[in-house]
Parts: sequence; structure tokens; C-alpha cells
Amino acid sequence: MEIPENKLIRKIRQFERRSDEVLRGIGDDGAVVAMSEGAYVLVQDAMVEHVHFEFDFVDPYDLGKKALYSNISDVLAMGAQPLYYMVTIAVPDKVTSKEIGRLYRGMNRAAKEFDVIMIGGDTTGSMRDFFIDVSMVGKVVTKSYLGRNKAKAGELIAVTGFLGESAYGLSLLRQGKTGRGVGRFIRRYRAPQPPYGVWKELVKRDITTAMMDISDGLIIDLERMMVESGKGARINLDQVPMPAVLRKEKRENLALAGGEDYQLLFTFPAHRIGTIFEITRMGFPVSIVGEVDKGKGVRVFEKGQEKQITSKGYEHFGDIR
Amino acid sequence: MEIPENKLIRKIRQFERRSDEVLRGIGDDGAVVAMSEGAYVLVQDAMVEHVHFEFDFVDPYDLGKKALYSNISDVLAMGAQPLYYMVTIAVPDKVTSKEIGRLYRGMNRAAKEFDVIMIGGDTTGSMRDFFIDVSMVGKVVTKSYLGRNKAKAGELIAVTGFLGESAYGLSLLRQGKTGRGVGRFIRRYRAPQPPYGVWKELVKRDITTAMMDISDGLIIDLERMMVESGKGARINLDQVPMPAVLRKEKRENLALAGGEDYQLLFTFPAHRIGTIFEITRMGFPVSIVGEVDKGKGVRVFEKGQEKQITSKGYEHFGDIR
Repeated sequence: MEIPENKLIRKIRQFERRSDEVLRGIGDDGAVVAMSEGAYVLVQDAMVEHVHFEFDFVDPYDLGKKALYSNISDVLAMGAQPLYYMVTIAVPDKVTSKEIGRLYRGMNRAAKEFDVIMIGGDTTGSMRDFFIDVSMVGKVVTKSYLGRNKAKAGELIAVTGFLGESAYGLSLLRQGKTGRGVGRFIRRYRAPQPPYGVWKELVKRDITTAMMDISDGLIIDLERMMVESGKGARINLDQVPMPAVLRKEKRENLALAGGEDYQLLFTFPAHRIGTIFEITRMGFPVSIVGEVDKGKGVRVFEKGQEKQITSKGYEHFGDIR
Repeated sequence: MEIPENKLIRKIRQFERRSDEVLRGIGDDGAVVAMSEGAYVLVQDAMVEHVHFEFDFVDPYDLGKKALYSNISDVLAMGAQPLYYMVTIAVPDKVTSKEIGRLYRGMNRAAKEFDVIMIGGDTTGSMRDFFIDVSMVGKVVTKSYLGRNKAKAGELIAVTGFLGESAYGLSLLRQGKTGRGVGRFIRRYRAPQPPYGVWKELVKRDITTAMMDISDGLIIDLERMMVESGKGARINLDQVPMPAVLRKEKRENLALAGGEDYQLLFTFPAHRIGTIFEITRMGFPVSIVGEVDKGKGVRVFEKGQEKQITSKGYEHFGDIR
């Protein structure tokens, strides 16, 4: 990058926002924030060039949005309202200061959507690969945090939105299909916005027990939830919400195993099903896709018949969270 | 790296420590911690292969320690006790799982020294370069946080420990001099432990106004403090604490402009000089090196004569904190 350090930091500081709780923002050894008593969620999630993305496919503006969205998604999934974030970027020479500007503008846009404030981070050079790592703090707003470990046998399993959109968008991009009618999928791949509206309704009613975001694929993520909860799950493929085109093209697997949708996966007590219907009547897409049992692993059924699922989802190394 | 994801996470989880305040640690979308009301410091600091270190010079164990120390140092410099940290690593194939194990053992060792707990992070592959990025939360224990912006004209300027040790250690390593009598310098370069003992005495007495850690060199870091405070500073080179060998070899510049010492630089009201002497009598090294004035920039004097300082310190891109 051709830009000197001080100029870069000035560039970044323009995205600072005022808040009474931020006692000290960018410009010191660390940020200082005033916090009230309570439970807080801390997350950290990175994206690495050639592993998570290629600059050929993703504009820096969308990359910035996505870097924030993936962290926001994790905070929401724990039942917490995102508050503050910090960003580390490691930038090789080939990346221009204009691209870095677009990256921060993208982050800033996503931050505004969820009312989360940048308070600091680190900028450094890099020999060859570009690297972005965001950490975020949020405050738990549900009675108790929504962990992967809280699913109980007999509870129902639900997901928000439609699954497989992001993976389908990526496959369209790879085939060079960027024409009419596919924008929705490509946008979902490039900058998958977490479902804030339905999340607010869910946490307001404190209906969910276990919750997580679907980042690597429905089956693999549900398996992780069941392992942490010591339970098993049955899923009805017919009820898994996906764009019609996936069923038409016989690519249902993208809905089961395609990553990066950042929709919410959660369990809730069966007797509260009326509350879910109440939320869907408001126009929010929530689908009940299966139930938790005392077994082990995730079994998938289609029209009553158990199906063998081969590719479960995307594994990079994954999170140590 | 040849290790599969699940095994790596199991490896990392062995370094989890129990705490009543950690409601949920590794194994979920995010960590959950219980926090009391107050001011909290958040920092994030990365190290990138070929920019901050080479594996030829640094063992992964020391690299882990250093990654923690640089963040701990920032938290302490704000007047806060470090509490929790998260770690992102991006690992190319050439790095072995044994090396990753040593890295986490090094972090764990440094964490224990300062009673800070790992609660999560992210692990990912990388095409070519190794990255490590640590974020940390601490709680302010002084009456008000110790910012770079708080220096007042007439206050005295002090530093802890000896400066230039780390830069001298690096120059010895580069010359292949690793024999007798140089271990202190090489250790300081490889794993510069922040001065916790003297920090505790300083914050207990609430004597400091502005504080920061010296990560890039005394002059450049002091200049940053003065810019944030809107003040100027005069430094007496004769009083800058450095190993005798630097004066002997006429390499005083390493003490003024050598980075990565992670000693503390602070200002305090002149009338409290007795408190500083009290701390030095306890055996802690603190040196009064100059004073804050109403001017601009940092001026360096030697035996009463102003000196021209050329190389001010190390700049990578630097922090956006």
C-alpha cells in the first residue's frame, strides 16, 4: 500500500462515531468504554485472502460488510446486541489505499445497520496475503445467553430466511452468470446481512433455548449444536426453506451443506409454536425444520424416508469458539 | 498444517481455564462473560510473518508470549487490569501442529503471569504467510483511564526499566552473536515481558496522568503522546535509562528509537516526585527523563545542549488505536 501510516489512520478515524459510553476511541493504546453490569458476548472472526475470498470475486466494500456481518451474526446468535468492534488489517503492497477506503466504508455501512461502533484495532503491512480480523463485544439482552449447549429433547428446530442462497450465488459467480434475476443470490454471497428484524422479535419474546448462526451449512452446524447439547436431531428436507430454483435444479444439497448464509438456527419448546406463527404472520420468514431427540447426530428425512447425506458443509479450520 | 480442525480445537481447549465470570468459553458462536459496572479497555494487536518476525529468529513459544505481552502492555498502559483475550491465527501449510502447540503454550504461560484468560478466537488456513491477532479486555483500576491525551505542562516524564534492550537484542541476533552475557537482550527482544510489578505500584498510588507503552521507540511514542495532549516535551538523554553497553558502543540511539521494549512511559505531577522515589527505593527501576512544556514536539538535550535526532523509531503502519 502506497499510503503512509498517519494518513491511513486519519482515513480510518473519519469513521469514528460519538457515543457517551465511549470514553476514549481511536488514538491511544486502547479504547475505553463504560459498561453497565451484565453478561457480555465477545467474538472474533477473520477472513483471509485465497482462503475465504478472492479480490476477483469480491469488492472491498462488500468484503468490509461481510467481515462485520459474520461477527454481528455470532453476537446475535448468542442473544446479545452488538455494541463495539475492533478491526485488524494486514495489507500487502498490491492493495491500494482507495481499496482500503472502500473496505472501511463497507464496514461502516454494516455497522450503522446494527448500531455497532468501531473503537480501534491495528493496521500492519503484509508480505503477500491480505488479512482482516474483526473482534466484537455485545450485551446479552435475553434472560440467559443463547448457547449451542441448551437444546433439549422434544424441542422443535427452526431456521430463519432461506438456505443455500449464498452457496448458489457463489456457484453463479464461478460460472460467470451475473445477469438478470440472480442478483439476490450474488448479494447474499457477497454481503450476507444477518436477519436483524426477526432476531429482534425472537429475543423480545425470549422464545429460543439454543441458538447459533449457520455459517458452514445447516447439517454440520446443527451437528455441532447437538454435540454441545448432548442430543440428536431429525430434519425434514421438505421443510427446509430454500429458493425454488434449488429444488428445480436438484441442488437441495446447497441448502443443507452450503455455507455463509448467516441465517439463525434455533430450538424452542414445542408448546410455544403459536409464538413462532405470530412472528411469521408479521412477515418474517421462520421455518420449523425438525425436532431434537435423545439420539446422536443429525438424521435427514425426505417424504418420511431417511436420506444419506454425504457432504455436510464447508470446513476451513473453523472457529475455536 | 496437517492437523484436522476438530483436533486443533481440542488442542487449544486444553488451555481453557475455569472462572466464575466466564459463563461460556470456547465451543460456541461467542464467549460470554459476566462483567461488573465500570470502565473497560479493549485492545487488538497483530503480528505478521516477514513484517514483525521471522520464524528463523523466533521460536513459536516466544512468539506466543510476545503476542500476549504486546496486548497486555497496551491494557496496562491505559490503567487497566487485563482479564480476557481472544486469538485469531491464520496458518499456512508449512507450519506444523507441534509449532501451533508451542505457540499456544507460550501464550498460556504469559497469560498466567498476568492472570488473563483465553475465551475464544478463530483459526483459519492461510496461503503463504502466518498471522496472529490477539484482542484483549481489561478493567480500569485507576480513578480514570490513563490516556495519551492527559499530559499537562509542568509535569515530569518518567519511564520504567531500561530502553533499547530489545533493539540491541535483535541486532545481536542479526550478527549471530548469541553467546555469554547477551541472553538478557535476546530474551527482551524475543519475549518482552511488561513491567507488571512497577505498574502495580504506580496504579496503587494513582500517581500517573498520561501513560503509554513504548512499542515503537521513546521519541516517536512520546511525540504521539504530546500530539494527543497538545503539549511539547524536553528529554535529557543523560537520564534515559539504558544498558551501559549502549553508551559504551555509542548506540544511544537504540534507547531513543529502538522499538518493542514495552516499558511504560508516563507523566506525573512534579509535587509527587517523592512517591516515585518511594517506588524506586522498593527496587523498581523508574527514571525521570524530562518534562512536559507548552511547546510542540519532542526536544532532546545532552549535557544541556540540544541534539538533532534523525531516526525516531520504528514505523510499520502502526496502530489505529
